Amino acid sequence: MAKVLTPRSESYSQWYNDLVLKAGLAENSAVRGSMVIKPYGYAIWEKMQRILDQMFKDTGHENAYFPLFIPKSFLSKEADHVEGFAKECAVVTHYRLKNDPDGKGVIVDPEAKLEEELIVRPTSETIIWSTYKNWIQSYRDLPIKCNQWANVVRWEMRTRLFLRTAEFLWQEGHTAHATREEAIEETETMIKVYSDFAENYMGVPVKIGVKTANERFAGALETYTIEALMQDGKALQSGTSHFLGQNFAKAFDVKFANKEGKEDFVWASSWGVSTRLMGALIMAHSDDNGLVLPPKLAPIQVVIVPIYRSQEDLDKISEAVSDIQSKLRARGIDVKFDTNDQRKPGWKFAQYELQGVPVRLAMGARDLENGTVEVARRDTLTKEVVSIEGIDGYIAELLDTIQENIFAKAAKYREEHTTSVETYDEFKNVLEGKGGFILAHWDGTEETELKVKEETKATIRCIPLDQPEEDGVCMVTGKPSKKRVLFAKAY
Amino acid sequence: MAKVLTPRSESYSQWYNDLVLKAGLAENSAVRGSMVIKPYGYAIWEKMQRILDQMFKDTGHENAYFPLFIPKSFLSKEADHVEGFAKECAVVTHYRLKNDPDGKGVIVDPEAKLEEELIVRPTSETIIWSTYKNWIQSYRDLPIKCNQWANVVRWEMRTRLFLRTAEFLWQEGHTAHATREEAIEETETMIKVYSDFAENYMGVPVKIGVKTANERFAGALETYTIEALMQDGKALQSGTSHFLGQNFAKAFDVKFANKEGKEDFVWASSWGVSTRLMGALIMAHSDDNGLVLPPKLAPIQVVIVPIYRSQEDLDKISEAVSDIQSKLRARGIDVKFDTNDQRKPGWKFAQYELQGVPVRLAMGARDLENGTVEVARRDTLTKEVVSIEGIDGYIAELLDTIQENIFAKAAKYREEHTTSVETYDEFKNVLEGKGGFILAHWDGTEETELKVKEETKATIRCIPLDQPEEDGVCMVTGKPSKKRVLFAKAY
Repeated sequence: MAKVLTPRSESYSQWYNDLVLKAGLAENSAVRGSMVIKPYGYAIWEKMQRILDQMFKDTGHENAYFPLFIPKSFLSKEADHVEGFAKECAVVTHYRLKNDPDGKGVIVDPEAKLEEELIVRPTSETIIWSTYKNWIQSYRDLPIKCNQWANVVRWEMRTRLFLRTAEFLWQEGHTAHATREEAIEETETMIKVYSDFAENYMGVPVKIGVKTANERFAGALETYTIEALMQDGKALQSGTSHFLGQNFAKAFDVKFANKEGKEDFVWASSWGVSTRLMGALIMAHSDDNGLVLPPKLAPIQVVIVPIYRSQEDLDKISEAVSDIQSKLRARGIDVKFDTNDQRKPGWKFAQYELQGVPVRLAMGARDLENGTVEVARRDTLTKEVVSIEGIDGYIAELLDTIQENIFAKAAKYREEHTTSVETYDEFKNVLEGKGGFILAHWDGTEETELKVKEETKATIRCIPLDQPEEDGVCMVTGKPSKKRVLFAKAY
Repeated sequence: MAKVLTPRSESYSQWYNDLVLKAGLAENSAVRGSMVIKPYGYAIWEKMQRILDQMFKDTGHENAYFPLFIPKSFLSKEADHVEGFAKECAVVTHYRLKNDPDGKGVIVDPEAKLEEELIVRPTSETIIWSTYKNWIQSYRDLPIKCNQWANVVRWEMRTRLFLRTAEFLWQEGHTAHATREEAIEETETMIKVYSDFAENYMGVPVKIGVKTANERFAGALETYTIEALMQDGKALQSGTSHFLGQNFAKAFDVKFANKEGKEDFVWASSWGVSTRLMGALIMAHSDDNGLVLPPKLAPIQVVIVPIYRSQEDLDKISEAVSDIQSKLRARGIDVKFDTNDQRKPGWKFAQYELQGVPVRLAMGARDLENGTVEVARRDTLTKEVVSIEGIDGYIAELLDTIQENIFAKAAKYREEHTTSVETYDEFKNVLEGKGGFILAHWDGTEETELKVKEETKATIRCIPLDQPEEDGVCMVTGKPSKKRVLFAKAY
C-alpha cells in the first residue's frame, strides 16, 4: 500500500502537515490563518478539555465566561502589557452591514462606526481585571479562581495548523489573591498541573522552568513554562503560568481591605494552554504511518475489524465481537466495531494506523474456531494472537502498557537529545548536528541572550527548576554563572 | 430579613434583573451589550451543555470547530439568507494596532486594513457550507452531522442578560444529507431532542410547532420551534431547528454523486439553542425569594448548614454530616457542607434560597441527639424533620419529586394560561388580561399576521404540531381556516 505521508526524513514539516490533513484532524479554512478543527481532531481536544477541566476543579477553580471584545483603551492601561504584547489583533470598527445600493451584495454601513474600536481578545487579563474590580472589596472576597474556555485571536502572519493560527481555542485561568505568597503558590500549582497533564495523559515529558525577563509574558513578574521536545529536535512551549504581581490590579484599581482593615492592591496569576497542545501531541509520538495517540487521549482506544467472506461468517464474528465490546465498555474503554462493507480490511488497517488508534483487533472465521483474536499495537506496530478468554483484562493492561511505552520512548528521545556543553562552538555544533535541548551556562544578561538568538536562532527556553546550582562560566562571554539554562530552537 | 428582590407583582422585568445579579448568575460588562457569565450561572450552563452534548452524541452527531470570522462576501451568497438576516453584525476591518505616536495609548494602524472585511459570525451556515464543499464528493461522504459549541455576535441595541445580548454562547448543529426526507427527519429529530431537554431537564413544558413563512430563519424552507411560556404570560422561543433544503448547497456549490452516479445538490438542516435557555429556566420557575432550580440542572443539589454554638458541637455535627455526604455522593448527588463561620445560619438559608438550591438540610446539636435532620424544599418552601436513618434514599426520592413538581407547576400554569378564542375582540381581551398562549384561527396570510402584530404586539409563535384539524374562520378576516395557531406576546 502506498504511503500517504511524506516521510519525516524527507521533510518533517511536510510530514506534519500531511498528517494533520490526512488523519482528519484539521484543515485551513477560507479565512486566512483560521483553521477548521475536524471531528476527529476535535474529539481529541474534547478529551484533553475534560481531563484538564477536572484537574482545574480539583484544584479549586470555577469556570466563567468573559466578553470576546475588549475596548481598545483597556489595552493601554497596563504599561508593560501594552508595550510587550503583540499588536497584531483583529479590530472591530463597525457594527452594521447594509445592502449594497449598487448590487446584490452587502457593504459595511459607514454610519455604523463604533465610537471606540473593540479588539477581539488576544488574552483576557484586561477585561477580566476590569470585572474583578466590581467583585472585590474585602479579603473575604478572595481568592477568586476563575477559568474560561474560549477562542482568542492573534493575527499571525505565518500560520501552521494547531501550532500557530490566527484564531485558536484555549483556556485561560485568572486568579486574584490577598497575598503575594498565595499568588505565587497558585502560579506554581498550575504549572505543575500542566506538567502532570503533559506527562501522564499526553505522554510528553516536559521541563518546568521560568522564562528569562526577555521571554516573559507582557505584564508578568515571572513566567513559568513547560517545554517539550519534538522529534525534529525543536522545543515546543506547551503551557505557561504567570505571576502578575499587582500590575493588573494597579492598572484597573482593584483594591481590597485586608483583615486589619488596611487597603492594598490585589495579587494576580494567569495561566493557559491551547489547541497548540494538539501540535505537541502529534509531533512528539507519531511516525511515518501516521498518528500515534496515547490511549488516555484516543477517541477510539480499540478498533475491531472483522475479516470475512460470507454474511454467515460476519454474523458469527459479530456475535463474538458483541460480547468483547460489552466487556471492554464495562471497563470504560472506547471501542469501535467497523462493519463498513465498502472497505477492505487492509484499507481499514492503514486508516486506523493513520488515525493512531492504539489497539486494533482483527477477527476472522479461523480465529473464531480457535477462540483467538489478532491484537495489533499502534505504538510498536507489532501483532500477536491472543485467546478471547479474558481478552478484556488483557487489553486494559495493554492500554496501560502502551501509555507508559509512549511516554518512555519520548523520555528516552529527550534524554538522548539533551546535551550539556561548555563552549559556544560546542553549542553551535550540537545545535546544527543532533539538535535538541542544550544545557549551558549563561551570564544572565539580555545582551548575551539576544546575541545567541541572532547568531544561532536558539533561545533560552527556560531556567529549569530542577537544574542544580553549579559554578561555571557563560559559554559566550566567560562571565561567571551559577546555573545552566535550557537552550533550543523552538516552534 | 429584608427581601433582596423587587417582587414580581411590582415589576417582573426588574425582578428578573435583580435575580440574575443577586443570585450571581451574570452581569453587564464594560463592553456594551456583552455580559459576563459568573461562576454560578456558568455552572448551570455547563450542566446544560453536558446533557445536551450527550443527547447530540446519542443521536449520531460529532463536535467540530469552524472559524469565528466569515468573509463578508459569503453573507451575500445565499439570497434569502442575506435578505432576511439582520445586518447588525460586528465587522473586523483592521488587523493591527500600533503605539500612538502622540501619547502612550494604542491606535488602529491605518496601514493594516483588510482587503475584505470579516464578519464575526452571527451564525455559521455560510462558513460551514463553504467547508463542506471540500468534504463531500459522493453519497458515501454523507450524512455529515456536526455540532459546534461557540460564541456568536449579533449587535442588539436593547439587551437583557441571557435573553438578548450582543455576544452569546450557543451550539449550532449543521448537517448534510443525500435526500430531502433524511434532512427533514433530522430537523424533526433535533426539535424533539430540544423538547425532551426542556421538559425533562429544565422542567419547562414547550409547544413544538413550525414557524410561519414570515417568522422563518433566513434561508430555511421550514423552521421548527419550541415555545415556552413565562410567568408573566409572555412566550420565549427556546430552540429552533431548520430544514434548509438545498439552499446553502446551491449557494456554495456543494454537489454529490448519488448511488446511481447522478449529481445532485446536498440537503441541509441546522439547529441551535443558546444561553437564552438560562433566561427561560430562570423565568419559568423562580419566585420572589430567588431562583428555583430543577434538581437535574442545579450545581448544588443539596446544601447542609450546621447550627452550632461551640466548636465541640460543630465537630460532632461534622462527623454525622460527613457520613451523610458520602452516602449522597455515592448516589451521584452534588452536595455542599457550608462550614463558613463568617455567616449565620439565617443568612445562609436566605442565600441558598436566592440561589435556588433544591434541598437544604439544617443540623443542630438537638438533631444529633434525636437522630434527625431538618429538610427544607426550595420549590414549596416547606420543611420537615426526618430521621437520619436512610436519609440518602429519602433525599434521592425527594429530588425526583421536586423535579416532577417543578414541571407540573409550570405545566399547570401553562394550561391555565392557554386560551382558545373565536373573535378578535376576545383575542385582545385575553391578551391584555391574563395573557399567555392564545389558540385562534388564522387565514394563513402574512397580511393578517402583520396586522395582528402591529395592532396587538402578539405574534404567531408557531403552528403547533399537535393541534388537531378543525373547520373554523379567521378571527380577523372571517376567511376559512383548518387549524388554530398559537399566538402570544414574546420575548
